[in-house]
Amino acid sequence: MEKDERKRESRGFLLKQRAFLKLYLITLMQQKKSYGLQVLDTLTETFKPYGYQPTHSAMYEALYDLVEDGILHRQEIIPPNERFKKLVYYEFTNNGLNQAEVYKKQLKEELDRCQGLIQQAIRDNFA
Amino acid sequence: MEKDERKRESRGFLLKQRAFLKLYLITLMQQKKSYGLQVLDTLTETFKPYGYQPTHSAMYEALYDLVEDGILHRQEIIPPNERFKKLVYYEFTNNGLNQAEVYKKQLKEELDRCQGLIQQAIRDNFA
Repeated sequence: MEKDERKRESRGFLLKQRAFLKLYLITLMQQKKSYGLQVLDTLTETFKPYGYQPTHSAMYEALYDLVEDGILHRQEIIPPNERFKKLVYYEFTNNGLNQAEVYKKQLKEELDRCQGLIQQAIRDNFA
Repeated sequence: MEKDERKRESRGFLLKQRAFLKLYLITLMQQKKSYGLQVLDTLTETFKPYGYQPTHSAMYEALYDLVEDGILHRQEIIPPNERFKKLVYYEFTNNGLNQAEVYKKQLKEELDRCQGLIQQAIRDNFA
């Protein structure tokens, strides 16, 4: 049921921000460039030329979604000699990398679809 | 104030559906291919390959926005010998075509921006 809903959502207008951020989170974690929320700094730099600034809460929701999907696993570590500090990071679950690849394949199709839609609009309105 | 808000909106993630539909409405009316809501049939055909189906209410909101913007003007006609039927159509206001051109120019920039963002995501995640 949940999957059906997602499929329907993705056949709407353009890609949702949530899916876009999940895709980047997966890729940056695959490349060991991130363990979670600090990805925000990387993405802020990447998207600056496009005037897009994802918020902390949007990133958090994307991370939470990946945990809910069973792709990521949340870890908490209390460093030695740090009684009040807690480090939170994320890693792939046992089957997480496989699921992540399936998700990425869907997202590639979705990005291609959006690119087609935008190009069509440019042709139709600015030929 | 309202203009500032729109500018801020447009510097977010991808283009909003509302703006996309306003753009098509303007172009189809410039080409005299539409007088308003019947544009829905044209667009349904155009977007079918992309799995996108704008709703009647989304179109109505876009039309309403163009009237609010002062670009379009709503006309009602009661045809002769039709006591209970009312035809509604839309036409450009006196300054509507000029304003429409300004809007289209903004939307071209916005579509280019979105295309760049999507291409960047394809490169970053599927290189």
